[in-house]
Amino acid sequence: MTRTEPARGMRDYLPEDIRRREHVIGVIRRVYERYGFEPLETPAVENLETLMGKYGEEGNQLIFKILKRGEHEASGQADLALRYDLTVPLARVVAQYQSKLPRLFKRYQIQPVWRADRPARGRFREFYQCDVDSLGSTSPVIEAELCTAVSVALTELGFTDFHLRLNHRQLLTEILDAAGVPAELHGSALVALDKLDKIKIDGVSKEMSERGISAAAIEALTEVFTGRIAMDLVTGGPMAGLQSVADFVSRAGDVPASVENLRRIFQLTENTPAAGHLTFDPSLARGLSYYTGAIMEANVPDLAGSLGGGGRYDNLVGMFLGQSVPACGFSLGLERILVVMGERGMFPPNLTTTAADVMLAVFDAADAPHALRVAGLLREAGLRVLVYPDADKIGKQIKYADSLGIPFVAILGGNEIAAGTVTVKNLTAQTQATYDQAAAGGAILEGLRQRG
Amino acid sequence: MTRTEPARGMRDYLPEDIRRREHVIGVIRRVYERYGFEPLETPAVENLETLMGKYGEEGNQLIFKILKRGEHEASGQADLALRYDLTVPLARVVAQYQSKLPRLFKRYQIQPVWRADRPARGRFREFYQCDVDSLGSTSPVIEAELCTAVSVALTELGFTDFHLRLNHRQLLTEILDAAGVPAELHGSALVALDKLDKIKIDGVSKEMSERGISAAAIEALTEVFTGRIAMDLVTGGPMAGLQSVADFVSRAGDVPASVENLRRIFQLTENTPAAGHLTFDPSLARGLSYYTGAIMEANVPDLAGSLGGGGRYDNLVGMFLGQSVPACGFSLGLERILVVMGERGMFPPNLTTTAADVMLAVFDAADAPHALRVAGLLREAGLRVLVYPDADKIGKQIKYADSLGIPFVAILGGNEIAAGTVTVKNLTAQTQATYDQAAAGGAILEGLRQRG
Repeated sequence: MTRTEPARGMRDYLPEDIRRREHVIGVIRRVYERYGFEPLETPAVENLETLMGKYGEEGNQLIFKILKRGEHEASGQADLALRYDLTVPLARVVAQYQSKLPRLFKRYQIQPVWRADRPARGRFREFYQCDVDSLGSTSPVIEAELCTAVSVALTELGFTDFHLRLNHRQLLTEILDAAGVPAELHGSALVALDKLDKIKIDGVSKEMSERGISAAAIEALTEVFTGRIAMDLVTGGPMAGLQSVADFVSRAGDVPASVENLRRIFQLTENTPAAGHLTFDPSLARGLSYYTGAIMEANVPDLAGSLGGGGRYDNLVGMFLGQSVPACGFSLGLERILVVMGERGMFPPNLTTTAADVMLAVFDAADAPHALRVAGLLREAGLRVLVYPDADKIGKQIKYADSLGIPFVAILGGNEIAAGTVTVKNLTAQTQATYDQAAAGGAILEGLRQRG
Repeated sequence: MTRTEPARGMRDYLPEDIRRREHVIGVIRRVYERYGFEPLETPAVENLETLMGKYGEEGNQLIFKILKRGEHEASGQADLALRYDLTVPLARVVAQYQSKLPRLFKRYQIQPVWRADRPARGRFREFYQCDVDSLGSTSPVIEAELCTAVSVALTELGFTDFHLRLNHRQLLTEILDAAGVPAELHGSALVALDKLDKIKIDGVSKEMSERGISAAAIEALTEVFTGRIAMDLVTGGPMAGLQSVADFVSRAGDVPASVENLRRIFQLTENTPAAGHLTFDPSLARGLSYYTGAIMEANVPDLAGSLGGGGRYDNLVGMFLGQSVPACGFSLGLERILVVMGERGMFPPNLTTTAADVMLAVFDAADAPHALRVAGLLREAGLRVLVYPDADKIGKQIKYADSLGIPFVAILGGNEIAAGTVTVKNLTAQTQATYDQAAAGGAILEGLRQRG
């Protein structure tokens, strides 16, 4: 006998799980379609060289590698790998099919990715990402539309209290410069800053100090991230905060392009559903190294970590194409959305949870051909119908339907078959009535509507 | 620069491909739901030991194996593998969650599988299977419902000329016995018989002879598969054919259980949509070794090979559970269905093929915030809207929409913004009209309806 658990860090999705996943995916997909994004899918398996070197040293370690086949298997070498994210395959696709794709290519992609991470609560080795990306334009309209689409998707899922934090990679560099952090320590400073949510400003300051950043620089950064500038953000909103940061990075009074870009994104979203969710956060760092412009992250108060994040990455496609194609995207994490929605009870009550709307039972197994015929009539009416297959007593058959929460049982006995009728039992209301076989479907549908 | 093609034998699905795939998957899924099947998904990655030894020697060779991670990577050993079919994972799931699943578990599963086969026309290394299986009952109602569900799925996809061929593993054994093929040559005989469609009866006879089967046995088998019995099938239908085969395998006149089982399946489907498609074919062999009862295969005249197949396998779950659970299933091959539908032009004409219903254009880039606001109104009306992001001349913007086949362009200039209106250009009819911004969505929807 073989073990029966799924592989470590992987999950089987039973029907109830799938209904919830499909609900969330359906909402996200419909919103993204309204925003003009088109579906794309790529293979689970990529050439190993496509993925290597795109995710940093730590990423390389987490890639699942596939052994060569046939006579080469014994070499122990790998030539293929499992998809690690949806962004690198997108860059490959844009390079490969450039002539077939529209100049402004907007795509969504909802597929699993695999990472050989240590499994933990909410962290799996196979998980779905819901990505949405626009390629071909450097306009801040792209960022504004992405933020709006993500806001609408989260809103239509039932989230009201999310924030979409916005920052800019170039602005982070400018803040570090202005605070007096030498360029060679920028990377270290960002690694420390990335932990602000977890270890607070005292922890970040301590780590920066350990990494060799001067006390004066740390004091200046503290001012930006938690002092007067942060206060301007709280009291005056993003535009006031942006002005404060502009003043900080440019004593000469000229506004850097990064601040201008963020301002424009706020203006563009002023009369969209993103307004009220979008905030400016000069401390937002985002881990991935390929970002080149605006970066964003979606958070809710009751989840450590984010529901998703993204940003502009104008150089990644160039690694495949040899010529740069501007790009900007956002990735929602399906598993985290499901966790929060589950904990908050956000799934609609009418998500299908039963195997069928009605079960067909027969008194005499010899009458099964009639059961299949009548099941066909009920299905034509649009009902989900289970035909009880075995020659059990009618009481046992009804009990089985009840145990599965199937609300109706349609019963065929000799009398019903002779009269062309079927008896329908409502297991919830504990009532029953006999209908012409052709009319039973409508009656059951009406009964389902009344249950809500 | 890295290569940009997908890995060998794998495919990227561009938007148009996805629309077609989702159409087919949607039809199949809706039919299977009406038949009381529930969705199940399993991870792409399984423990290697779960898959090894389940698919025969040839199958083992075609499994993609995943290298151990971290310090064990250097060993060159594999501990995981990619899903090879959907049946073995189902058997594992049924064993693992037996207490959580209904006693009669009916599930569908539409997911990719991976095989390291030599790629060829219509044969890929990543391809989707659409499986539907019933577990927990030995009743022929199960087979009858499966055949009906598959028939309805193919019919709703637009196939009218398919045959669902039915046979029985045990009956094949009885035919070989009656023809005088010794038990130890049954395997060889079935391998030869499996090629009947390709190499015809002369080729099969020749191969059987080479494999050591006597001339008398070959003559008897020829009679069953192409002679008088086959003629009874053609002229008298499946029941007459079954009687002839029963007479052949049992000179004493008693009807073997296998024939009784097939008869019952034909009776049960008599008044269902499977009638007229279901045929009896005593020569149908099916490759997989785990079948134990009825076997079936769906074919259309213009495709060598099948659209799908299946059968009863009452012993597979027992390999995981240690106690046997009766099971029967059918697998439709998505890729082959797509090939035939493409060649025959069977896709509905209204499958979405454009990126959006309407594109928003602005005369002055400074007015982009208005474009995003009006886009929001159109999206609330249910339209798929692309906002042109760049500050190009209006003519270039309209040309872009036209080049993508987007049927409408909504234009905002200074006059429109001042008046709270928007000008809508119908690119197909080459007309334009100006609407209140709140009314434009309805007008465009009406225009789309008129286009059909």
